[in-house]
Amino acid sequence: MINKLVENIKKTEAPIVVGLDPMLKYVPEFIQKKAFEEYGETLEGAAEAIWQFNKGIVDATYDLIPAVKPQIAMYEQFGIPGLQAFYKTVQYCKEKGLVVIGDIKRGDIGSTSGAYAVGHLGKVQVGSKSYYGFDEDFVTVNPYLGSDGVRPFMDVCKEEKKGIFVLVKTSNPSSGELQDRLVDGKPLYEHVGAMVDAWGSEVMGDSYSYVGAVVGATYPEMGKALRKIMPKTYILVPGYGAQGGKGKDLVHFFNEDGLGAIVNSSRGIIAAYQQDAYKEKFAEANYADASRAAVIAMKEDIASALN
Amino acid sequence: MINKLVENIKKTEAPIVVGLDPMLKYVPEFIQKKAFEEYGETLEGAAEAIWQFNKGIVDATYDLIPAVKPQIAMYEQFGIPGLQAFYKTVQYCKEKGLVVIGDIKRGDIGSTSGAYAVGHLGKVQVGSKSYYGFDEDFVTVNPYLGSDGVRPFMDVCKEEKKGIFVLVKTSNPSSGELQDRLVDGKPLYEHVGAMVDAWGSEVMGDSYSYVGAVVGATYPEMGKALRKIMPKTYILVPGYGAQGGKGKDLVHFFNEDGLGAIVNSSRGIIAAYQQDAYKEKFAEANYADASRAAVIAMKEDIASALN
Repeated sequence: MINKLVENIKKTEAPIVVGLDPMLKYVPEFIQKKAFEEYGETLEGAAEAIWQFNKGIVDATYDLIPAVKPQIAMYEQFGIPGLQAFYKTVQYCKEKGLVVIGDIKRGDIGSTSGAYAVGHLGKVQVGSKSYYGFDEDFVTVNPYLGSDGVRPFMDVCKEEKKGIFVLVKTSNPSSGELQDRLVDGKPLYEHVGAMVDAWGSEVMGDSYSYVGAVVGATYPEMGKALRKIMPKTYILVPGYGAQGGKGKDLVHFFNEDGLGAIVNSSRGIIAAYQQDAYKEKFAEANYADASRAAVIAMKEDIASALN
Repeated sequence: MINKLVENIKKTEAPIVVGLDPMLKYVPEFIQKKAFEEYGETLEGAAEAIWQFNKGIVDATYDLIPAVKPQIAMYEQFGIPGLQAFYKTVQYCKEKGLVVIGDIKRGDIGSTSGAYAVGHLGKVQVGSKSYYGFDEDFVTVNPYLGSDGVRPFMDVCKEEKKGIFVLVKTSNPSSGELQDRLVDGKPLYEHVGAMVDAWGSEVMGDSYSYVGAVVGATYPEMGKALRKIMPKTYILVPGYGAQGGKGKDLVHFFNEDGLGAIVNSSRGIIAAYQQDAYKEKFAEANYADASRAAVIAMKEDIASALN
C-alpha cells in the first residue's frame, strides 16, 4: 500500500491528504436539515449528515488527491451510527481509488494491539470464515507501550501489504511535555524516530517502508532532524493550515526526490467555505467546490515551497 | 464515579476488576455454536457469542466485584457488530450496579481528545438534543501527546462526575523502551506519575481523584515508587494472573487505608474453565461458575497478601 500511496502522489503531483474530520459545526445547514428531517435530531441523523458532507467533499476532490485521513474520533463521538458513517466513508474513498489512512492512534499490549490490527487492517477469524472489519489501508499507531504494542500491526501489514504511521512528534502545543524530554542527550522523539527507522527496515516497499511516522508541521526544525534519522520513512505531516503550519515550513520533511512526506489538512479543506478566503466566492450550497479550491491552493503552496 | 468505585470496593471487600476481553478462543463451544446457528459464522455471530459469554460471566460474578473493564479492541476487531456487543456489555454491567472502566487507551490532540471524551464519557450535541455515546464510567487514556490530549477528558469528567486512568507504566514486557528512559535522572514514568498527580489535584472526589493511573502488576518496585508520587490517585493494576503478577507483588500499590488500587484480571477469570486449576471441577457448560471460583480465589490471594 505504501507503493500505491507513492504512485498516487506522483500521479496527482500532490503530496496532500485531506483530513475527513467532520465536526457537525462544519456541516452546512442544508445537509444537517435534510438528515434531521429524515432521521430526527438523533445519532443516526448526525451520522447521515457527516456522511453526506464527506461524500460531497470526496466527489469534488478525489481526482486531485492521493489519499484521505478520516479521524475516527469524530465518528466515534456519535456512537455506533457514527462508526457506521466512518465505515461507509472508508469504503467509499477506496472505491474512488484513494488511499485511506485511518487516524485511530491505537496502541496497547501485544494481544490487544493484535486485535486492533486485525479489526482495522486485517481479517478477523469467525469459525471457518474470516472478515475485514474497518479495512483501512493505513492506520496511525501510538508508540508509548514500546515495540510489543507496534509489532502486531507490522505483522498484519506484512500479510495485507498495508501500513502504519507511528506517532513520533505530534503537532499539538503540549506534545513536547513527554516527546521533547532529553534522554541520553537527545529528545525522546529522536529515539522514537530511530525505532521507527529500525522497524521500517523490516517491512520495505519499493522505495519506502510500510512503517511511516507522524511529525507535526508545527515543528519544522524537528522535522528536519527526523527526516535524516528516518530516510526511508514516509512522514505524515499534520498541523498544516488551521493549526499554523505553512508551505515553507514543510520543505525539510521531504527527501530530495520530492517524496517522503504527505501533508494533511482537515479544517482548512473541509470547512473552507466558512473561511474568509472562500466565503464570498462560494455559497454554502457549494461547500464542496470551496474544498476543491482549497485543495488546489494547498497544492500550489506546497509546490512553490518545494521549488 | 471515583466515590462510587471506592464504595463498591468497600462493599465487596474486593479491590478487583474483571477484564471482559472476550477473544473467541475463550468462548465455550456451545455458546459459539448457538450464536453461529442463529447468525451464521459472521461478525454478527461472533458479536452474539461474545455478548452471551460476557452476560454469563457478569451474572455469575456481579455480586462479588466492584467493577469490570471491557477492552474495546476485543470488540472493535469484529467491526460494527462487535462494537454493538461492547455497548450492550457496558449498559448491562451498569444495570447490575458495576462500575465500568472502558479500556480504550485513546488520546489525541485537544479537539480530537474532546470528541473521544464526549463519545465515551459524556454527551454529544446533535441539533437541539444531546446523547450519550458509549457511556462508560471511566476510560483509560494515553498520555504521549501531553496535557492538551488529557485535559478534554478531565473537562468531561468534571461535568459528568466520571473518571480516567492515565497510562503511566504499562504491564507489557517492552513498556520500558520509552517509559523507563531516564529524564533528568528519573524514569519517564515517574514524570508522568507527577503529571497525573497534578492533574488529579484539580478534580478530587471525596478521598481520591477523578484522574487515576495505570501501573502494571508486573513491575512491583515501580508501583511502590509511583504510589508515593501519586498518593491521591487510584491505581488500576493490570498484569495480575496470566501476565505473571502475583498477590504479594501488589502490596505496595495500595495505600495504608487498604484502598488506592484496583487489580485487573482478564483471562485468569473469564477463561478460568480452560485452566488446569478449574478444568476438572467445571465442565465447559459451567464456565461462568469457574469464573466465580476464580474471582473468589483472586480475592483471597489479594486479601492474604494485604494482611
